[in-house]
Amino acid sequence: MADAANDALIVFQPSGKRGRFPRGTPVLDAARDLGVYIESVCGGRGICGKCQISVAEGDFAKHKVKSAADHLSPAGTTERECAANKNVDPENRLSCLATIEGDLVVDVPDAFRIAGQTIRKDATTVGMHRHPAVRLCYVEVEESDMHNPLGDADRLVSAIESSFDLENVRIRFDLLQTLQRTLRKADWKVTAAVNTAGDRPEIVSILPGYNETLTGLAVDIGSTTIAAHLVDLMTGEILASTGVANPQIRFGEDLMSRVSYVMMNKGGRENLTEAVRKAINTLVGDLLKMSGTPRGALLDAVFVANPIMHHLFLGLDPTELGQAPFALVQSDAVRCRADEIGISLGKGASVYLLPLIAGHVGADAAAVLLAQAPQREDHPVLIVDVGTNAEILLWDGKAVYAASSPTGPAFEGAEISCGQRAAPGAIERVRIDPETLKASFKIIGTEFWSDRPEFFGASKATGVTGICGSGIIEIIGEMLRAGILSPDGIIRAPRTEAEAPYLVENGRTWSYVLNDSNPRLTITQNDVRAIQLAKAALYAGVRLLMDKADLSELGEIKLAGAFGSYIDPAYALLLGLVPDCAVENVTAVGNAAGQGALTALLDVAQRREIEREVRAVTKIETALEPKFQEHFVAAMGLPNSADPFVKTRTHFDLAPLEPAAQPGDRPRRRRRRER
Amino acid sequence: MADAANDALIVFQPSGKRGRFPRGTPVLDAARDLGVYIESVCGGRGICGKCQISVAEGDFAKHKVKSAADHLSPAGTTERECAANKNVDPENRLSCLATIEGDLVVDVPDAFRIAGQTIRKDATTVGMHRHPAVRLCYVEVEESDMHNPLGDADRLVSAIESSFDLENVRIRFDLLQTLQRTLRKADWKVTAAVNTAGDRPEIVSILPGYNETLTGLAVDIGSTTIAAHLVDLMTGEILASTGVANPQIRFGEDLMSRVSYVMMNKGGRENLTEAVRKAINTLVGDLLKMSGTPRGALLDAVFVANPIMHHLFLGLDPTELGQAPFALVQSDAVRCRADEIGISLGKGASVYLLPLIAGHVGADAAAVLLAQAPQREDHPVLIVDVGTNAEILLWDGKAVYAASSPTGPAFEGAEISCGQRAAPGAIERVRIDPETLKASFKIIGTEFWSDRPEFFGASKATGVTGICGSGIIEIIGEMLRAGILSPDGIIRAPRTEAEAPYLVENGRTWSYVLNDSNPRLTITQNDVRAIQLAKAALYAGVRLLMDKADLSELGEIKLAGAFGSYIDPAYALLLGLVPDCAVENVTAVGNAAGQGALTALLDVAQRREIEREVRAVTKIETALEPKFQEHFVAAMGLPNSADPFVKTRTHFDLAPLEPAAQPGDRPRRRRRRER
Repeated sequence: MADAANDALIVFQPSGKRGRFPRGTPVLDAARDLGVYIESVCGGRGICGKCQISVAEGDFAKHKVKSAADHLSPAGTTERECAANKNVDPENRLSCLATIEGDLVVDVPDAFRIAGQTIRKDATTVGMHRHPAVRLCYVEVEESDMHNPLGDADRLVSAIESSFDLENVRIRFDLLQTLQRTLRKADWKVTAAVNTAGDRPEIVSILPGYNETLTGLAVDIGSTTIAAHLVDLMTGEILASTGVANPQIRFGEDLMSRVSYVMMNKGGRENLTEAVRKAINTLVGDLLKMSGTPRGALLDAVFVANPIMHHLFLGLDPTELGQAPFALVQSDAVRCRADEIGISLGKGASVYLLPLIAGHVGADAAAVLLAQAPQREDHPVLIVDVGTNAEILLWDGKAVYAASSPTGPAFEGAEISCGQRAAPGAIERVRIDPETLKASFKIIGTEFWSDRPEFFGASKATGVTGICGSGIIEIIGEMLRAGILSPDGIIRAPRTEAEAPYLVENGRTWSYVLNDSNPRLTITQNDVRAIQLAKAALYAGVRLLMDKADLSELGEIKLAGAFGSYIDPAYALLLGLVPDCAVENVTAVGNAAGQGALTALLDVAQRREIEREVRAVTKIETALEPKFQEHFVAAMGLPNSADPFVKTRTHFDLAPLEPAAQPGDRPRRRRRRER
Repeated sequence: MADAANDALIVFQPSGKRGRFPRGTPVLDAARDLGVYIESVCGGRGICGKCQISVAEGDFAKHKVKSAADHLSPAGTTERECAANKNVDPENRLSCLATIEGDLVVDVPDAFRIAGQTIRKDATTVGMHRHPAVRLCYVEVEESDMHNPLGDADRLVSAIESSFDLENVRIRFDLLQTLQRTLRKADWKVTAAVNTAGDRPEIVSILPGYNETLTGLAVDIGSTTIAAHLVDLMTGEILASTGVANPQIRFGEDLMSRVSYVMMNKGGRENLTEAVRKAINTLVGDLLKMSGTPRGALLDAVFVANPIMHHLFLGLDPTELGQAPFALVQSDAVRCRADEIGISLGKGASVYLLPLIAGHVGADAAAVLLAQAPQREDHPVLIVDVGTNAEILLWDGKAVYAASSPTGPAFEGAEISCGQRAAPGAIERVRIDPETLKASFKIIGTEFWSDRPEFFGASKATGVTGICGSGIIEIIGEMLRAGILSPDGIIRAPRTEAEAPYLVENGRTWSYVLNDSNPRLTITQNDVRAIQLAKAALYAGVRLLMDKADLSELGEIKLAGAFGSYIDPAYALLLGLVPDCAVENVTAVGNAAGQGALTALLDVAQRREIEREVRAVTKIETALEPKFQEHFVAAMGLPNSADPFVKTRTHFDLAPLEPAAQPGDRPRRRRRRER
């Protein structure tokens, strides 16, 4: 940049970064010099076609630049061939080959920007930033030479440092063994996978020749279900998704029974660890097969889990989590190598687990926080993720509060006489005719309500098997609406002969008959009590956080997780699962934990961000708070009539809710039944 | 430091660092604040007794300080008890407990300064700086607490960060599994070993309770011998030393035959690797037993080796080193974990190998460079380490030049008809009576010359077994002095009847009879030729470097290694192994490679230093230099009569050298016979 007369001005969009460079400078070099990060796998050799830019033509008064396409050098043979092979957009040029020949305004499309947003129209990852931990660097290494007796590893490092924006690169020790053979077999042309997430960039894998496949894994290890996505880290696109039941279930349905198994059985921890790792390895194999991508390209993985799943997955003893003070082995994010925990990804793959928030508030809750980022809102936001425990996050405009509330598994269908996990055949929606008390319902797997003639045929494959969590919420809500339940949760006796088939005696209490036969399904007084206890626990946890934050109103409520995705917000409000809020501001946000895992997988900056945020979270241990018990007792009513915060529910009080829907109108998107 | 009136001035010696602190500030805190590094294992709890300082009393006009012992708080019970238990010098105070109560000048003795010099009177490590990679940190961790649900690992990290000058500390993943049990069993009081040599301090080991034993290993892996020292990293003292023959010898005596073994045999590399690692593990076991220190305290190790030994030790295929261009896998320093290479040190121990200089110039040569530091001299310095190859380092006042010269194993006794490795029974010194041609000699293991009556009895245990390297140099020199050898290396025929027993016919040439019987030892014409070739190779290598440096004179010559330690410099000069130099400036420097390993073990800063220096070395590959052949041919004469640099040798030309010494006068210290 010495000879000013020969210099030209270049402005990069959208960053607006600008500088003068001698004519003949490749655009990519200018970009690097200015800190504009354009993707490049081949390091500027016109091979990868990833460093695309386009010229914004015209007179940019703002920049004092007259920009024209012919202010770039014309495309030569290499560029034309690469453009043809790599489907380069005809509007675009390769910034490594095109040189600056006059003043320019240049656009760097999102897809070709490191840390740009993902562009593929994938509902799950669209809009996420993409800045993966691992980067592919194609290099042509200088052959070894007696005049300059540097080692082959040192030559590789030096080639990477000189072609990419990387300094102080090191190489994983275990790559040394095969390095010389790989370099010679590949004629000194290799693609190195460099992990840039650590303190120093580290070469973690070396593949012969040019290689542009790089994938990552995002896994949500739930107590019940393990769900995994395979993601193209070059585009952000989800290549394949799958899930499997957590095989630890055979050692204990709920978390505490798994901890007991560990405590009571020699080798118990090892059995649980092996079970979950084996399941994940099977999932990985399936994802690779489904996507047709090689295992060697799978070089990064992010896992989220609750604290007990997290510990068992990592091979850590969860015994301390079974008793106060619920001491975590490590609450901060865990970074390790996939082979250290027996997970078969590509050789050199790294693993990241989001931080745990507290003894009962896990990396899954941290992932929800990351995905939902309530801190961006200027109104108070409550996020509730209901599973066996409810994880509660509250943003009051200044700080995030977190707690876990011991709801027990009633919301998941356990502890309910005819309850079951969400699965085909389970009743998920219910309406009760207040005149006749007859219920109609819908089961998972068919689109027809039970009072339609088509239902019989459509339900034949699965039958009607029980009631899942969202079904239980609706039926309790409907029983309340239909006057079967009193506000203190008592099922009344029949008043007429016509009601007798629906309200039947059961010892000293009454039960409601939801389905008379095949199978006979009833809601007992105990079932109602179980739901009352669960919802009181959830509500009390929320109220406790609101106390801490000195909040009396919520601007927004987000229901996360599978249960949250399937319950009708109106019923959640009706029963008082959550505090009063305009029903339109209560939304289901789906598998936010899984979204958080994807976010952290795609963008390493988000990992540091969530670590910082989790450290700043105000953690509340409900067991230590005397007020929790007060709130709990007050929240037992239907709705929470004893709570002064509950003012009116006129907008749906006994008014008909959404009518029984028919095929075609599926109000909420169902992505995944279970977590 | 707000209230200036209440402040006092403290000056630390020898650094001279000074600052004002409020009265009541512990001296250790002031030291940390000023960047004065005082050792402390207990983090300021008055347990370890390592943070000793003494008050320099008096009026220090230079510092404007009147310093007095009572300007420190008086010693309390904790300090007095610690002083008694830990043998604290009665002159000294504990800087963690003594608080500043008035102006002070304080001395920090070397022994208690991090990066101070070692003080123990160990000839090998005295004067070396001590700043080991690993540091012991005793901490009392806050018990886990529901109100602050940090993980146990996070509590440990935070305790270390707050008690020691460490930031951004991380914990090795594999420590997590046992962390909770260790903390609870040890009542939350543990000593963490923190490796501070990497990019971030890393907890590598956790020992219950207070612990102040920390050891390191320095190993020199020679082709023939492996030598190891166990070092107390808290003091710099060598606790134990031992050595063993390199068991790879059974796969090949010299380096190239071992490479051939790898190339010719499936599993050959694995066999060689396993052999050397097993030998080292045995050495480690011996050293631990000898010193009575626990394996768990052995947390760092430095290895030096030539490139082929280096590669085989690390499990790297040395095949490329057997052929041009002699490509190293990695020339830069290697850092790995001991368990990655199958070496059984303490759990969490790290391993460091010094950088390799070139394909034939290894980490051992780098260690010689580190130990001898010729760059500190203002005159040209030549360092020669003779083994199977000679490694040559030349400092010309501006740069270091390095080369390896293919001397072959003649200097080690191989290729000589009656040659052998240095071992008891081998002739190491020789004198020939120029009148009678009769030789007298000394063997390793006795102090008597062979012409003394005591010799018969003294040599009985070993017998006379052959001639080792230093003996060969002397006998050739003596044959030259006695006129038996011509300057072109021809053994002459006997001239008188009396000479006939000493000069005998051997085919078409003559041999010199060194010992007539039991056993009969002769020097053949071929033996002389072998030495001529070896010394010409060495000399040519040295001259080539002098050419490169444009040097015609040397200020100093250092002979490193076992061979260099035992040859008489006068004979080395007489035969022209090295260029002309005043004989008093030719010195043996012992096992400089081993010294370099110790230096790097004791002081991590030296590792970065030697890495930088090795990168800056000018590497000369003798095989590529046409001038090498010229120098080689010119150096065949005895002495190098064809070399214009050889001017006069009158100071010893045929004049009697040092007389045959007798018991009591041992001119050179023998530290170790072999390498």
